[in-house]
Amino acid sequence: MKKLLLASTMLVAGAGMAAADISLNGYGRFGLQYVEDRGVGLEDTIISSRLRINIVGTTETDQGVTFGAKMRMQWDDGNTSTAGNAAQFWTSYNGVTVSVGNVDTAFDSVALTYDSEMGYEASSFGDAVASNVGTFYAYNSKSQDPGYNGIAVTYSISDINLYASYVDPNQYVTDLGVGVEEEFGIAADWSNGMITVAASYVENAGGYKDNDLGFVGAAYKFNDAGTVGINWYDNGLLDADQVTLYGNYTFGATTVRAYLSDIDVSGADVAYGIGADYAFAEGVKISGSIQQGFADTNPGAGIYSNELIGMRADVGVRFDF
Amino acid sequence: MKKLLLASTMLVAGAGMAAADISLNGYGRFGLQYVEDRGVGLEDTIISSRLRINIVGTTETDQGVTFGAKMRMQWDDGNTSTAGNAAQFWTSYNGVTVSVGNVDTAFDSVALTYDSEMGYEASSFGDAVASNVGTFYAYNSKSQDPGYNGIAVTYSISDINLYASYVDPNQYVTDLGVGVEEEFGIAADWSNGMITVAASYVENAGGYKDNDLGFVGAAYKFNDAGTVGINWYDNGLLDADQVTLYGNYTFGATTVRAYLSDIDVSGADVAYGIGADYAFAEGVKISGSIQQGFADTNPGAGIYSNELIGMRADVGVRFDF
Amino acid sequence: MKKLLLASTMLVAGAGMAAADISLNGYGRFGLQYVEDRGVGLEDTIISSRLRINIVGTTETDQGVTFGAKMRMQWDDGNTSTAGNAAQFWTSYNGVTVSVGNVDTAFDSVALTYDSEMGYEASSFGDAVASNVGTFYAYNSKSQDPGYNGIAVTYSISDINLYASYVDPNQYVTDLGVGVEEEFGIAADWSNGMITVAASYVENAGGYKDNDLGFVGAAYKFNDAGTVGINWYDNGLLDADQVTLYGNYTFGATTVRAYLSDIDVSGADVAYGIGADYAFAEGVKISGSIQQGFADTNPGAGIYSNELIGMRADVGVRFDF
Repeated sequence: MKKLLLASTMLVAGAGMAAADISLNGYGRFGLQYVEDRGVGLEDTIISSRLRINIVGTTETDQGVTFGAKMRMQWDDGNTSTAGNAAQFWTSYNGVTVSVGNVDTAFDSVALTYDSEMGYEASSFGDAVASNVGTFYAYNSKSQDPGYNGIAVTYSISDINLYASYVDPNQYVTDLGVGVEEEFGIAADWSNGMITVAASYVENAGGYKDNDLGFVGAAYKFNDAGTVGINWYDNGLLDADQVTLYGNYTFGATTVRAYLSDIDVSGADVAYGIGADYAFAEGVKISGSIQQGFADTNPGAGIYSNELIGMRADVGVRFDF
Repeated sequence: MKKLLLASTMLVAGAGMAAADISLNGYGRFGLQYVEDRGVGLEDTIISSRLRINIVGTTETDQGVTFGAKMRMQWDDGNTSTAGNAAQFWTSYNGVTVSVGNVDTAFDSVALTYDSEMGYEASSFGDAVASNVGTFYAYNSKSQDPGYNGIAVTYSISDINLYASYVDPNQYVTDLGVGVEEEFGIAADWSNGMITVAASYVENAGGYKDNDLGFVGAAYKFNDAGTVGINWYDNGLLDADQVTLYGNYTFGATTVRAYLSDIDVSGADVAYGIGADYAFAEGVKISGSIQQGFADTNPGAGIYSNELIGMRADVGVRFDF
Repeated sequence: MKKLLLASTMLVAGAGMAAADISLNGYGRFGLQYVEDRGVGLEDTIISSRLRINIVGTTETDQGVTFGAKMRMQWDDGNTSTAGNAAQFWTSYNGVTVSVGNVDTAFDSVALTYDSEMGYEASSFGDAVASNVGTFYAYNSKSQDPGYNGIAVTYSISDINLYASYVDPNQYVTDLGVGVEEEFGIAADWSNGMITVAASYVENAGGYKDNDLGFVGAAYKFNDAGTVGINWYDNGLLDADQVTLYGNYTFGATTVRAYLSDIDVSGADVAYGIGADYAFAEGVKISGSIQQGFADTNPGAGIYSNELIGMRADVGVRFDF
């Protein structure tokens, strides 16, 4: 993500100096999204689009301590209008960042976990299946429940990133209610530029008691152009391990991508996707994909059929600013 | 509309370079708005005001292709708070711009059609009458229905602009319902600096089946100071052609304005307006007007009386930033 | 409040020149807020946070007349999302500023009245008690009622500031209803750098008929490091005069603060607060406070007990950008 400095001011005082900035960044994306048999009375092909705008304010002291806050305004097709989301606050020093509020969680932030994604909408059936409480908390791009509050810590040192996060579904009340618990997550990743490994674990994921998820991933980069990787997910209460194998290869401005994902549920077939990006320029990418995912025949019970759901395809552009 | 560059960054990559910008612009206006006999229990004179803020993100490749996205936050007096609207996305190259989402429509974008407007709120009874389905789709400054989606193309070459637009009132469904259709519009305008001509046509305007509107306008500029123009509108299902004659003349910083508008409905009198602007500076204008419009005595049936509605006057300031 | 110029453009025209700017500024704050016996089933200690973003557009003519408009987006913990507020518009010239819309009122803007505040959330039980209609209109950071409209004038000349404001709770209607009136306020403050005095008066404060509030304050600065001050409030219909005595002293980057506040209600005890700030840098402050306030035992009737309400403490950071 590029950071566009909109303003900068140096302030001098007896107590020291601080550099205050407020900046905007984001991206737009639009294109065609096809979902086979989307639903009765529904069009299979639509124009699916998103505009994301982040407003980021920071103040850095001359000792190198940074304080920051962020708000996001995100519009997706189907939304009638656009509100700002809940704020995230942080302070960072010497590679350690502590965030509060609408935080990025450990399980959502670790490297590799989303690397099988493709298409201009960055989707993959090889991501951790997020249903039947194989779900977890992440940064809320739109509204969040009152009282939702997270605390997250990240530490980056040379090639290693460490993550820990805690989310209280409702910090205002002493009793969260039956079956609702605070989420705790930890994660780590390491890379030497060629080999990357990552792992994460989260307890009471998404606030569901005993919904403990795990992730381990590894990727290998070859010839400066190709990557192959494998991701393994323990999907918690869904009780279905998932393995995703993916790879991509870059020829000039073009990158081709593919993945296979197997979920350990009786009758579930192997999900797959193939896709390609064309990097028009740095920050401008035209992407397309064809994917087919797991068919959850009995949502709520975690029962999958031996047929995949209908095909899904997308082609469109994303541009960062 | 001025474009204030807030930030700019040059990005270098193997695939090429891109210049990413995010900018804000807009205007404020406030003043007194008088409406004779506004309603029972209502004040005739109020402070009417608007704050419009556009947030525009663009990325331009070194081949000269631009990708952009825009969101608007607009507050008008009477609003309790301000939300962002639905996003517009576009790409442009060599004079051709293709937009999707919350697009500017052809009928709303063509030259001259709003040139009889006056006062700090830029209003005119000489605009195409927008009732009894003499209405059409335009850019939505505030919320829009879910599924509303447009596609628009504009092409500018030397002195000519061509416009085409398509709006699907609900892109998600296969059946829009009885009497609802997709809107198609085309338009063109040409100017040599002295003479300007413009025309547009739109089918199923505003999504109403068979509501086909037309517009033809011409204007002539004389002495580098005055303009006279005539606009003709076919108001579709309203079944009432409308002709507006207008003129303005500039003395130094002052411009005086006037219009007459005749609608071909039995009993309807001639609407009129006179007004003046004082350009305090470029982008800062104090304007006032006195106008009187058609009296729709039976809204929904297109029946007009031979009396005009009560007088309307405004005086206030608009400043662009 | 710092003003971060995001953009600037010079526009040249026959009528003169104007400099248009659009800027963002604001602050973030977060920390721990403790309220003893906050409520049944509620946590006493929470993370309380705020992100405030102001978007300000201005245009200045070469004669030195400035036109401006402002919108605020403010998120506080507990909010599910963030909307922009109602706009404020102004024009200023030679020290005179006239505002309309969501204005800053005289009673809320005068110097000293909030100078007993402390902690990262800038609170004090020594502020004018705002209940049982000891309340008044102020700038609305979030939503406001439709029709709410203010007009305010400030005049600054050498060491003196004069303020006048008028708020119509509903400018659209001819009859505000029983017991609702327009609010009028005036205020003045003067300072020579050592001594500051301030006074204000507001009629029908908060739109409540005959709710007339008064304020007189004085402060003295000694040794370039310490301040002592006294504020007196007539709390209108609450029928309870209030006196607040406060002081602070700065040692290097640290400022210690204290206040006592007495309210003339039978049985009410003396509220107090002690606190400290550490100025990490200009615009970055870590603050904490311990405060205890008046116990309103019968809200709505203005009956206070001879016990204070539970202790309240906060510690956190605020950073401006």
